[in-house]
Order: sequence, then structure tokens, then C-alpha cells
Amino acid sequence: MATPEIYVHRTLDCGVELAALPLPGRRTAAYEIRVLAGLVHEPAERLGLAGTLEETIDKGTQRFTAQQLTDAFDAIGAQASSRVGRESMVFRCACLPEYVEQALELHAEMLRRPTFPEEFCRVAVDLGKQELTALEDDPGELSRRLIAPHAYGPILGRHEHGTVETLESIRRDDLIEYWRRTFSARRMQIAVGGAVDVDRFAHRVEELFSGFGDGATAPDNDYRLEFSPGVRHQMKELEQQHILICWPGLSMTHPDAPIEQLVLAMLSDGMSSRLFVEVREKQGLVYWVSAWDEHPRQAGMLFMGASTTPARCEQTFRTLLREVDRLGEDVTEEELRRAKTGIIAKSQTHGDITRARVSELSGDLFHYGRPMPVEEKNRRIEAVTINDVRRYLNDNRRDKLCVLTLGTRPLEGAVA
Amino acid sequence: MATPEIYVHRTLDCGVELAALPLPGRRTAAYEIRVLAGLVHEPAERLGLAGTLEETIDKGTQRFTAQQLTDAFDAIGAQASSRVGRESMVFRCACLPEYVEQALELHAEMLRRPTFPEEFCRVAVDLGKQELTALEDDPGELSRRLIAPHAYGPILGRHEHGTVETLESIRRDDLIEYWRRTFSARRMQIAVGGAVDVDRFAHRVEELFSGFGDGATAPDNDYRLEFSPGVRHQMKELEQQHILICWPGLSMTHPDAPIEQLVLAMLSDGMSSRLFVEVREKQGLVYWVSAWDEHPRQAGMLFMGASTTPARCEQTFRTLLREVDRLGEDVTEEELRRAKTGIIAKSQTHGDITRARVSELSGDLFHYGRPMPVEEKNRRIEAVTINDVRRYLNDNRRDKLCVLTLGTRPLEGAVA
Repeated sequence: MATPEIYVHRTLDCGVELAALPLPGRRTAAYEIRVLAGLVHEPAERLGLAGTLEETIDKGTQRFTAQQLTDAFDAIGAQASSRVGRESMVFRCACLPEYVEQALELHAEMLRRPTFPEEFCRVAVDLGKQELTALEDDPGELSRRLIAPHAYGPILGRHEHGTVETLESIRRDDLIEYWRRTFSARRMQIAVGGAVDVDRFAHRVEELFSGFGDGATAPDNDYRLEFSPGVRHQMKELEQQHILICWPGLSMTHPDAPIEQLVLAMLSDGMSSRLFVEVREKQGLVYWVSAWDEHPRQAGMLFMGASTTPARCEQTFRTLLREVDRLGEDVTEEELRRAKTGIIAKSQTHGDITRARVSELSGDLFHYGRPMPVEEKNRRIEAVTINDVRRYLNDNRRDKLCVLTLGTRPLEGAVA
Repeated sequence: MATPEIYVHRTLDCGVELAALPLPGRRTAAYEIRVLAGLVHEPAERLGLAGTLEETIDKGTQRFTAQQLTDAFDAIGAQASSRVGRESMVFRCACLPEYVEQALELHAEMLRRPTFPEEFCRVAVDLGKQELTALEDDPGELSRRLIAPHAYGPILGRHEHGTVETLESIRRDDLIEYWRRTFSARRMQIAVGGAVDVDRFAHRVEELFSGFGDGATAPDNDYRLEFSPGVRHQMKELEQQHILICWPGLSMTHPDAPIEQLVLAMLSDGMSSRLFVEVREKQGLVYWVSAWDEHPRQAGMLFMGASTTPARCEQTFRTLLREVDRLGEDVTEEELRRAKTGIIAKSQTHGDITRARVSELSGDLFHYGRPMPVEEKNRRIEAVTINDVRRYLNDNRRDKLCVLTLGTRPLEGAVA
């Protein structure tokens, strides 16, 4: 096996927290800039503001028009993208190693000196409204949007496009106010990886972001998850019936988090996973079934979802919950071994992809406050025993559930 | 830059065509087995058969039950998947290098000795029917399904799930007949890449597939594309309106194919592409717009698609076509340069990903009949001039179009 990888972790004088993973053999470099500015930082009467900002921040800067800026990225073949989340916004870039500093300069220009031209703000609001309309035609996305306020509460459960009313109320001044309040070097984490000279890159970050946003407030982390159990149905003329079930899980930093990860893998990862085999392959109950986790910074939420016919809705619902219980009863050593092998093999094959490594590093900074080497993660997975799995499933009962069905038929009986 | 990569290309005694790209530094190996058996090889009264076979071929072999087979893949952390296409089926695998031969043995067992247990055939037909139902709730997919028979004709335009009627008529014997007729070493192409010993791998392929399917017919390549221009509307109660436009393009082997690739990139690739900027960012007409190509083995089809509101349907339609014409009128050297840089940079960053390299290699075998080195592809892109772009757009007029709208409002006027 290759020599252990060296992770770098520094807080720069300018305030940016930097993590780096040099991978000298690669023909690629990638970085991810995370600004601790997300949906939770929106004023309650301006929901959709963070998403609108993410859509408009590249639409003109003091130095460039929108077209010039995107042309400049394209001219060096840099693939830039961005995404807004509950608690942060990420700006990603992958490019040839020789252009990584040029790309970073463009990002600095975009983040520090946006002009938010009026006409682009209007277009962004229009596009947001169209996304909300499109959501109505996408039952999978729609059901996730509908369950979020019940699963997470009114703040962590926000949606990136807000509502039609709050979107329409957004003006250029709101974008500027949000940007001033939340964009600053002290609220930035940068992860970089691939064929980069870390000292040089760090030096460039220092130069480019020094003095950025000294007026912005310090980051705050007190957005509490507010879970509201209950069974809810949204009537919609669909051919299928969507079911979502969720309940609070562990935060990424909880000592039992690796156990939870293995439980999810046994339920839903790979062709031999329980949900896939029992619910889809054996019973043919659903054409889609899955279990997954989501992680706000200090919390966790576990989900199971399925898409089935209205007639099979009750049976699918019961089977999903039964499969989780059954895992605590008859999990085997071989099954646990396969789940470990799967997670560890994926960490290796996945490790191939520079961008994926950088995203993981960025997530490590966000959740753990430091890079966590792959070897350390894999050791934690290896250490889990079958008794840990039984104990976890016993300690973390599914006795308070948040359930959402979307389609023509509500679930019958008080099931949750 | 690194030393040039060495591609291997051999036809083995057993009949399998093998291409390999050793990438010794990687921690991964990946392969893709392509069997020249797809939708075009289905009997007309059994549409959906190829998809049903792809779903059931891993559900039991002479040596393993379905569960044992998937457990065996999972036990070595091998990520296996499969997909059925118009003219072929692909079976993919990514794993740690030390397990690549074990994974290949499992695939050989699956491809050579499937038992198609009755109960799994029934489940697969059920799942296929559920997929057809789910399609009704997915306007993007549905519009692609609806345009395909007009774009490609009754054979190349088939859908993997056929129709409810033809699916329901599928029996275990149909699967066995199709498998006997189309699965054989002579109809197999294997692409492998990553940290593999090519001679050893080739030797193992030879052993595992020798004598496989000598009764199967030789591959045939005479499935002609039958294009039927016209404007068609499918009424559906949706919030959005979907528009698809297509017209025949070039085959992958046509000398002008790199020009077409650049035209598509200027239209739709990257943030500075024309459709994205003009249709989405400036006019806010659509929330989704794209142009792309599809390539049956000896043909090509170009698509433009958008999702808009019913009221903006005509305007969006006209703007899409106008943008293609305008490219021939005012394309600039810088724009062409950016498109070239984008394609070449992507070939490098993309080259990072072992699985992606193997998929590309597999596509090369299928389309070009040989591995085509990245350098050769990039040279062809570099050679395209602005006059080539103008000539291409002039020679390949958009005067016969196949148009499909899905939603509440048909296009007005005879536009195509």
C-alpha cells in the first residue's frame, strides 16, 4: 500500500481555516471554499435569500461583468460550481494544477467584490420561482421538502427556494445586507487537494482574503433541531405513492457514529443490503427504496424512503420499520464484515477522485473541526462489534417517527 | 506532464475483445464488460425483455443463489452494477486491485450460468411495470421516452421497460431464449483499467470465457435509424412545460464529429455557454436548459431540451433554435478557444477517475473499434477552426426537426 497521506491544517492570519491534502502524482487540483452562511442565516421574512445570493454572486464584480467572469473561468478550463446548504455555502473548483491560483483569484474577486446587478437579481428570483414550480412535478424532491420543517423545525428545516411570497419580496439591498453580515475570512474554510504546492497556495489565500469582511459577525452554531413526530399526508394526483420516514440520529462527532454508519450500510448499501433484497428484490413492493442520513453540524437525522403503489403503501411502511428491528435480532458476523469491507473499499476507490477527496476534507473541517485521515475513519469502522450494533439499535428506538406520504392515499391507523 | 499512457488492445482466442489501460499508481481497478445484446435484439412482441434479463441475470446461477452472489461481491467490496442500452448491456465493476480477478470470476459465473429462477422473473416484471408507472410522475424522463420512437424509429427508439402489455407477456423461457441467442464470448468487449496486471487479467478472461455461447449468433449492426420529423404534443397536467427538439447528428466516427462536439460545448457546456447565458441567465425563460448528443453505434442525434412555463413555451422554442443559428453567424475565436480548453481540461480532470477512464475505453471499443488515446482525441479537438464551425452549421441545417412538448399547452403554428 502507498505511504500514508499527509494532511495540512492551519488557521491563517487572515482568518481562513485551511486544510490541504497534497496528492503530487495527480493531473488535477481541486478546492472547496465553504462560507458559514446558509439558510439558517436568512431573515424569516426573506426565505430563499441565501439561494438567491448563491445564484447572483457570480453575476458581476467590481472588475468583471457576469460574462467576463464566467469566460475567465472557462478560459483556464476551471470547472466551478456552487451550492447552498442549511448552514453554509460551498464554492467548488477543479482545474489543471497550473491554474489553481488563477482560479482562486477569480473566486476571491467574486466573494469579496460582488455588485449584484439589479437585472440579475430579478432573473434569480424568477428562476427560484420556477424551481418551486418544477418541484411540484418532482415527487421525490417535493416529499423531502415537505418533511423537512417537521423533521428539523422552522430554521434548520428551511428550503433553499423559500416560498413564492418570500422570494418575491427579495430586493438587491437584501442580498447586500446578507452578504455584508455573513461573508468574511473568519467565516471561511478552504479545503484543497491534488497536485498543489500547499505553502504557495496558503500564501495566496492569505493575500487574497486578508482584511475580508471585518464587519461580519462571528459564526454562531446554536441552530437547534426541532423534531415534530407525527404522520402527515400530502394529497397529490400521482401514479406512485412516496413514503418518507425519519427520526433523529447521531451527530458526526458522536462516538457511536461509526456504528450508525454500519447499520445504514447493512440496511441500504450494496446489492445484498436488507432493504434492497427484502423490500425490492424479494417482495417487489417498491421500485425505489433507500435509507440514508443527513447531518447538520451538531445533529443527525436518519431517513428511509420508498416509492410504491397506493395499494402497497401500508405494507411497505410496515416492512421498512420491521427490517430495522429485524437487524437488531438477527444481524450476523458475515453481514457486518461485508458492510465494513464495503465502506473501506469505497473509501479507497473513492479516494481516486481528487474532487471527492477535497469534498470529504471540507466536510471534515465542518463537522470535526480538523482533517480526519482515511485510516482513522477506517479504524473506527473496523472496531465496531456485533454487540455494538445490537446495543445501538436497542438504545436508539424508533418510537418517535416523522412520516410523510405523498400521493393519492393516506396511511391508515395511528402508526407512529 | 506524465509519460504517455499505454493502451492494450487484443482479441482473445475465446472471442472476447479486450482493451486495457494500466494505471499502476492507483489503489483501484475497474472493468466494464459489454455484451452486444440490447433492446434492438428483443422480439417485437416482448419489448422490455432485455431490461428484464439485465434485472434477473444476477438472481441465481448454477453455483450461487441470488443472495450468495451479491454477498460474494460485497464480501470483497466490489461495486458491481449493470445497465441495458439500445445495442448492448454493460456490467461494471470497481474494486481494490487485489480482488479484480475474484470479481471477474463472479461475473463469469453470472453471465455464463444464470438460472433465471421463476419467482425473480415475476418480481422483475413487476418492478418493470412499477418503473413505467413511476415514469408518469417524471416529466423529464417521460418526454425522452415519448420522443424516442419518432427520433429513432421503432427499433432503435425502444424503451428499456417496453409496454405494460409486452412486459406482462414475458416468461422465464423468453429470458433463456434471449440469453442463448445473444450472450457469447464473441459478442463481448471488456475494458479494464487501473492497477491491473494486463497479461494476467487477459489470461483469466481467456480461461473464464473460453467456449462461452458458441451457439449464439454473430453480432449484427444493421439497425437503421428512422427519423420522423414533426411537432407532437402530449397533454399532461403539469406545472411546467417540457420541450424537446432533436435532429440527426453525426456518428462518432465521422471526421466532423469533433466540430459537432465543440458546437455542443459552445451551446451548452459551462457557465459561459450560449444556452445557459442567453436562455436561462439573461432571459430567465427556463429553469433548465441543455443541449446534448446521443450515439447509437453508427449514428448520432442532437437534442435541445428546456423546462419552462406554458406561457413561455413558444418563446423558449424560438430562442433555442435561434441560438444555434446565431452561433454560425457570430462565433468568436475566444469562444472556440474556451470550448476547446474546457473539453481538454475535462479530459484531464476526468482522467483522474479510474472508472470514468474505463467507461471511456469501453465506449471507444464500441464506437471506434479500438482504444483512442486521450492525446489523439484532444489533437482532433485542437485542429478545429472557426471556419469548420461555420461550415458545419451551414452544412447541417436544422430544417427537419422532431419536436415534443409535454404539459398543458401545445406549440402553436407549424414550426418545424
